[in-house]
Amino acid sequence: MFQFIKNGTVTSVQGFKAAGIHCGIKKRKKDLALISSDVPCNAAGTFTLNKVKAAPILISQKIIEQKNKVKAILVNSGNANACTGEQGHNDALTLKNYCASKLGVKPDEVLVSSTGVIGQLLPLEVIKKGINKITGSLSCSGGTDAAEAILTTDLRLKSYALKIKLTKGEITIGGICKGSGMIMPNMATMLAFLTTDADIDQPVLQELLLKSVNKTFNKITVDGDTSTNDMVILLANGKSKISIKKDSRDYNLFSDGLNKICEEMAKSIIVDGEGATKLIKVIVKGAKTILDADTIARSIANSPLVKTAFNGADANWGRIISAAGKSGADFNPLKSNIYFDDLPIMLAGYNIVIDEEKASEILNKDNFSVSLNLNEGECSTTWWTCDFSQDYIKINANYRT
Amino acid sequence: MFQFIKNGTVTSVQGFKAAGIHCGIKKRKKDLALISSDVPCNAAGTFTLNKVKAAPILISQKIIEQKNKVKAILVNSGNANACTGEQGHNDALTLKNYCASKLGVKPDEVLVSSTGVIGQLLPLEVIKKGINKITGSLSCSGGTDAAEAILTTDLRLKSYALKIKLTKGEITIGGICKGSGMIMPNMATMLAFLTTDADIDQPVLQELLLKSVNKTFNKITVDGDTSTNDMVILLANGKSKISIKKDSRDYNLFSDGLNKICEEMAKSIIVDGEGATKLIKVIVKGAKTILDADTIARSIANSPLVKTAFNGADANWGRIISAAGKSGADFNPLKSNIYFDDLPIMLAGYNIVIDEEKASEILNKDNFSVSLNLNEGECSTTWWTCDFSQDYIKINANYRT
Repeated sequence: MFQFIKNGTVTSVQGFKAAGIHCGIKKRKKDLALISSDVPCNAAGTFTLNKVKAAPILISQKIIEQKNKVKAILVNSGNANACTGEQGHNDALTLKNYCASKLGVKPDEVLVSSTGVIGQLLPLEVIKKGINKITGSLSCSGGTDAAEAILTTDLRLKSYALKIKLTKGEITIGGICKGSGMIMPNMATMLAFLTTDADIDQPVLQELLLKSVNKTFNKITVDGDTSTNDMVILLANGKSKISIKKDSRDYNLFSDGLNKICEEMAKSIIVDGEGATKLIKVIVKGAKTILDADTIARSIANSPLVKTAFNGADANWGRIISAAGKSGADFNPLKSNIYFDDLPIMLAGYNIVIDEEKASEILNKDNFSVSLNLNEGECSTTWWTCDFSQDYIKINANYRT
Repeated sequence: MFQFIKNGTVTSVQGFKAAGIHCGIKKRKKDLALISSDVPCNAAGTFTLNKVKAAPILISQKIIEQKNKVKAILVNSGNANACTGEQGHNDALTLKNYCASKLGVKPDEVLVSSTGVIGQLLPLEVIKKGINKITGSLSCSGGTDAAEAILTTDLRLKSYALKIKLTKGEITIGGICKGSGMIMPNMATMLAFLTTDADIDQPVLQELLLKSVNKTFNKITVDGDTSTNDMVILLANGKSKISIKKDSRDYNLFSDGLNKICEEMAKSIIVDGEGATKLIKVIVKGAKTILDADTIARSIANSPLVKTAFNGADANWGRIISAAGKSGADFNPLKSNIYFDDLPIMLAGYNIVIDEEKASEILNKDNFSVSLNLNEGECSTTWWTCDFSQDYIKINANYRT
């Protein structure tokens, strides 16, 4: 149905160009990215729920909500432009408009996004010079440079693309993202930018993106934090001439493909989480409601006790059932089963059937699943988390100083 | 109004005896405690809200809810009797009844409590022999031994008593507790046992305890976990002949004193938190509702990013305002102020006035406060938390194995 493209990225999709350069916000590393489309795109977006929203969040969210067509996304790393008040807001508008004029597009055809240190004003002139340069550097193979330029403390580049066979032909989705490296002096910021050549009306595109984000980016957790700058954007330029209508067979195929690429991107963020050594899939099944399933999965995935036990490859089922119990969700723990991968650990009635040797084998892998079946209903969910290592503390204790 | 007693404990209160012995659940350390009263006591209790409740929780909670008079509390450490099913429940009943017969009291005059490893059956015969011994060891100075016998990985004994001057004379409240050392293989269990010679009807006693617990034990957090075995019990034997009626002046004086001793006990648990090096008071003021204030304070006190920054003495105000922002509570961050002790850090409109040197001085103390004033309303709250150190990970990564 769908196939990942080797070294795929946002510019693997026809009609999109990108570039990533060093302009001078950071000392040496790339710090400015631009993604642009030949033609106006329908644009969908999801934004941080933190009450503290960075200036670019407020600006880009407004453009998306007004269902404006979009031709470019300008992203800087190294400075989040968060908690910068009216001046910060004006700066973001200035850069958006400046970039639009350099590209020869309308001011509201450009989205802006920032990640990095908070509470400091953007170096306007430095970035303007960067915009002069980057608008001349756009290319059909620039996606990887852009992927590099949005990183902060991430250790790895996060860039993907996949092809989806629809009933009427093939379309492509590309995506780049940055993850859960903490940003001086602040917090994890998750940014993801996706492109597609499918032709999808904005409300349908927004609905598709929201559904995928809820199943993927919203189900990962490194430390339970939500940044002031989180955003996911999906641009659809329609270049494939394949139009996707709501609730058609192609809608479902596209949705599956979008879920898949978002899932890969989300997992790449967890794997690159600060100090993370393991990727853990947390599956909660048999819940009465989806809300119960998510509440329990989130509680397990966020529990420092569970995450430290995974770090030590300790088959600590007690911490898992207790994290479920404290979540506030409705279930009877006497009916619950716990599995690591396919290995039964705890069966109904607190029947502990753990084979310590096999359990230890699983927990020493860098990738495994923990399933909790509540046997209460039909709802299930999947989350992803990482372990909690001493490196997490090292990285975060002295970050700003 | 009230005065702490040096080396005070549960047996600092007239009419109470206690003992703490090693019976053989643990290898060498004391593991069985008994607190008893000469006369039947009114008993109040609060219990874990975790859906996974240990057997002794269910049994003691029922006795308290039936407003039975109580003459003794039997506590073992080293085994939580949690997730042990019907057998575990029967074992707890057996020990309760056995202890009652040895003391010559009614079966439901004994409360039971456990802390330690979960998912393992209690060694019944070992504990019965221990009960034979401990019922003969009760003394008016045994409170400290009992305080020692309820500890698990705690590093320090937690034992207090204070005298309160009421309008009609003086009464005493004594208390012992254990804290947030993680318990092999599981979780933090918080146990606290309080005694008083005041004469207070059960419903009033329950109300007083609940109010104090909500202001103290329920406002501390080491890692956001709620154990399967948490309980706080207050026994009132009436020996002072000073009766406290609802909403009298003495009711308020007693309530203040109970808050004070519970606060000291709660803080002692945080100070002894695993890997903790600092005690941090989190004050949220100016909230529209108490719920908003508590939601924000809990979010700050539980944030691994905030707690690691405190560990590194990093004046990371951005993590604090972001933790508040992600809590879901209603406020406008532009109106917020942040102070460390009395030092202004961030004023309204994200006006950063931080004096790095002075801030670092405060954050390097082992005890300081962080205040967030929302300037939205009249409600405030105080929480206590500790920093998150590399030792926390060390202690918890390999605990069970």
